[in-house]
Amino acid sequence: DKPFVLIAGPCAMESRDHAIEMAAALTDMCGSLGIGLIYKSSYDKGNRTSIDAPRGIGMAKALEVFAEIRERFGCPVITDVHDAGQCAPVAEVADVLQIPAFLCRQTDLLVAAAQTGRAINVKKGQFLAPWDMKNVAAKLVASGNDRVMLCERGASFGYNTLVSDMRSIPIMAETGFPIVFDATHSVQQPGGQGDRSGGQREFVPVLARAAMAVGIAALFVETHENPDRAPSDGPNMVPLRDMPALLARLQAFDRLAKD
Amino acid sequence: DKPFVLIAGPCAMESRDHAIEMAAALTDMCGSLGIGLIYKSSYDKGNRTSIDAPRGIGMAKALEVFAEIRERFGCPVITDVHDAGQCAPVAEVADVLQIPAFLCRQTDLLVAAAQTGRAINVKKGQFLAPWDMKNVAAKLVASGNDRVMLCERGASFGYNTLVSDMRSIPIMAETGFPIVFDATHSVQQPGGQGDRSGGQREFVPVLARAAMAVGIAALFVETHENPDRAPSDGPNMVPLRDMPALLARLQAFDRLAKD
Amino acid sequence: DKPFVLIAGPCAMESRDHAIEMAAALTDMCGSLGIGLIYKSSYDKGNRTSIDAPRGIGMAKALEVFAEIRERFGCPVITDVHDAGQCAPVAEVADVLQIPAFLCRQTDLLVAAAQTGRAINVKKGQFLAPWDMKNVAAKLVASGNDRVMLCERGASFGYNTLVSDMRSIPIMAETGFPIVFDATHSVQQPGGQGDRSGGQREFVPVLARAAMAVGIAALFVETHENPDRAPSDGPNMVPLRDMPALLARLQAFDRLAKD
Amino acid sequence: DKPFVLIAGPCAMESRDHAIEMAAALTDMCGSLGIGLIYKSSYDKGNRTSIDAPRGIGMAKALEVFAEIRERFGCPVITDVHDAGQCAPVAEVADVLQIPAFLCRQTDLLVAAAQTGRAINVKKGQFLAPWDMKNVAAKLVASGNDRVMLCERGASFGYNTLVSDMRSIPIMAETGFPIVFDATHSVQQPGGQGDRSGGQREFVPVLARAAMAVGIAALFVETHENPDRAPSDGPNMVPLRDMPALLARLQAFDRLAKD
Repeated sequence: DKPFVLIAGPCAMESRDHAIEMAAALTDMCGSLGIGLIYKSSYDKGNRTSIDAPRGIGMAKALEVFAEIRERFGCPVITDVHDAGQCAPVAEVADVLQIPAFLCRQTDLLVAAAQTGRAINVKKGQFLAPWDMKNVAAKLVASGNDRVMLCERGASFGYNTLVSDMRSIPIMAETGFPIVFDATHSVQQPGGQGDRSGGQREFVPVLARAAMAVGIAALFVETHENPDRAPSDGPNMVPLRDMPALLARLQAFDRLAKD
Repeated sequence: DKPFVLIAGPCAMESRDHAIEMAAALTDMCGSLGIGLIYKSSYDKGNRTSIDAPRGIGMAKALEVFAEIRERFGCPVITDVHDAGQCAPVAEVADVLQIPAFLCRQTDLLVAAAQTGRAINVKKGQFLAPWDMKNVAAKLVASGNDRVMLCERGASFGYNTLVSDMRSIPIMAETGFPIVFDATHSVQQPGGQGDRSGGQREFVPVLARAAMAVGIAALFVETHENPDRAPSDGPNMVPLRDMPALLARLQAFDRLAKD
Repeated sequence: DKPFVLIAGPCAMESRDHAIEMAAALTDMCGSLGIGLIYKSSYDKGNRTSIDAPRGIGMAKALEVFAEIRERFGCPVITDVHDAGQCAPVAEVADVLQIPAFLCRQTDLLVAAAQTGRAINVKKGQFLAPWDMKNVAAKLVASGNDRVMLCERGASFGYNTLVSDMRSIPIMAETGFPIVFDATHSVQQPGGQGDRSGGQREFVPVLARAAMAVGIAALFVETHENPDRAPSDGPNMVPLRDMPALLARLQAFDRLAKD
Repeated sequence: DKPFVLIAGPCAMESRDHAIEMAAALTDMCGSLGIGLIYKSSYDKGNRTSIDAPRGIGMAKALEVFAEIRERFGCPVITDVHDAGQCAPVAEVADVLQIPAFLCRQTDLLVAAAQTGRAINVKKGQFLAPWDMKNVAAKLVASGNDRVMLCERGASFGYNTLVSDMRSIPIMAETGFPIVFDATHSVQQPGGQGDRSGGQREFVPVLARAAMAVGIAALFVETHENPDRAPSDGPNMVPLRDMPALLARLQAFDRLAKD
């Protein structure tokens, strides 16, 4: 029943300078609020809707930046891995490895991630029931790693829409692992704009408040100083300037939920 | 941003004595907590899964009991109407008429209910999107009644399952009408036990907390001193003895949400 | 394993003359093809999305027209009933009473319809699983009427969309009752145009062929000489001029399925 | 409008001898019926529900067996690839590379598969709308390969259930690419047995007939001489002895659909 940790950052790492700026802003903000921060960005968007969509700055470059962020701001970092071969190099820098939702059943990836010994945040596939995640967690544990986090990020609900089932938080919590709620991907509209995904940014505070009240260990929020210009996931990211008020509000719900 | 009102009672009115006992317990409980109560029960369960399931004590008898409850405990009462002809007689006693979810698109029923001048609580059909409810509300308003409440009680999600979409609360609230969250029918499993519906009582507090944090005008909870012996909706009703702690907890979330 | 029967006509009865013209065209068409016809229209659209939508010419007038159609063209007629009180008068003329999907769990309506002794076509609610329909049929049988037809017309699939689950045909057929496939409401997009429902007429032949191949007793298709000018359900009705080719094609699939 | 091709075989390659026996039986059966066969098996089940579930005989061994099958029976073979590195070696033997549904958005895998020049069968993710598959196909085409097949295998429908939307066949066909219907995975119940997936084998003929009537280029069916003893996907595989009658029946529907 410790206070929630924030996993936040821009969806994609855009450049070293942008990442440093974002990390500075977020560590500053979280410092003021007394919220633990894990800095998040992706070095490669490997499953974009369209092949023409930008993918990111690449693993090697990103790992340098993540190392600089860890050192400079003293905050742990998390990034997602997409195949088994990426796990070991990423684990040399990242404190937490994240398994993308589409890949949450890929045994080789889970095993390789687990074997790094790093903490693992697995996103629940949009196609899975919350009770199915115990089998996913078991793949990690069987590989010798019980530093597992399970993350709700929406379930398929008809086409091009997700729904957030708040029951999944206590159901996944029965595994004993900490539960993360991803408030920005939960409002994604997959493929909802034809050749890219849409999103409903206005519902991030709604779902985040609900999840906080239910009780979560960590909140995942992607943020950007100008989401509408972001290379990916703009429609569902929270503007950086809205974060302090949002976090302060959520902190109150978190305290109450854990009272 | 007034404190939430509680709409509560046993699913079906079982007998005069049982109703009086329940109303006494609930008014007492709500009095201690400073929560406004609207006493709820159905006089007829007109859409049970099975024809062999008990239906209730009937309208005439129930209206007498509702009148006694209003007088004795000074609390308003709500009950559901199933066809246009029931609206006028029920409105002579009930303070609020409730439109069942399956019937939320039946124009004649909505018009007749509206014309009584009583407040109307319309449950959102499991087959409707939250933005569709503005058309339902418009049927009431066009009939000269704007004392409307809109109630979320779960959306169809595959077979025999509902999901509660917390986005529906702010979406329906855009109509300007107060929003009710029905925490016990939202955990119903329609037809989930073959010839009757199942339910997941354990998730009532989960969904109720989530809805409170999002912000609602009223909470709907069916309760019974022994739900497993109740003639209907037992699997999703909350035991009466669990209500005080649940309500106290929810009250804190409500205050925070409206702070 | 008799050839499929066609249940067809315009969604709403618009006028005596229009109904007679449509019935003439359909009996002629079905006569040429050797297809049994049950003429369908609604006298009242009691659950339109919007209160401003036209509702129809009313029961009394429609029953006269239905009687004229039966006499003049020698074909049975079907129409939908919306409350218990309508069943007896409608049954004086209609050969088949239809229970709308939203109302398929309303016990009083089912009992009153059953007690007329007429055949009953019950549409499966968009919120029900196919195996739940055995309980609905049991309500009719317990009321002394086993002339029951069960009709698939789509299941809720996210918001404003239906999906046709072809498994529901054999599942509902386990009851022993004949199965109807409603090919035009299955392509409806409920509430999909804001204040009215949309539809995807282009998929009617697709779903109808699929259902024919699986094996059905009757096909339900709403048709109109100019669907885009029809007062209701235009987006999903089949233009009358497209019906002969569609039916001839479906007839071949029906024969093969029952071979 | 050529006759449908059959993609069939046991879900997992169990041993050289088992594969040869199955390929012999299937080539024999398809020869008699005049149906083109592509022999299918997986060398690695990389995304099983449970980590304790058997995974298969491995790529190197399987490729030898596939080569033997191609040579001995003269039939093309198809198998699924799970990361970019597998594409080139598999393409040395396999005529068609298959992209699993969970992986249908992984750009690197799609590009690597495309670059082999082999035909690619992409399964539609359970979390995607049929119109989203044009973006998936575009990733392959942009990588210089337009030998693409798109495969329907069910969409998420609540938890632990899939639904087959027959509209997806014509929608995906608008891309101009041939459409495959996977009749055995479409009846899978993902995670439906706690630590493994369930299935509803009895609905394979139902969905296959429906898809045939709608019109498909290829049918995908997993089969086994004793499905209940198969190491994976037993509950949804078709017993080998039932295949000849099923195929003969489907052939008639295919001919009619393309008449």
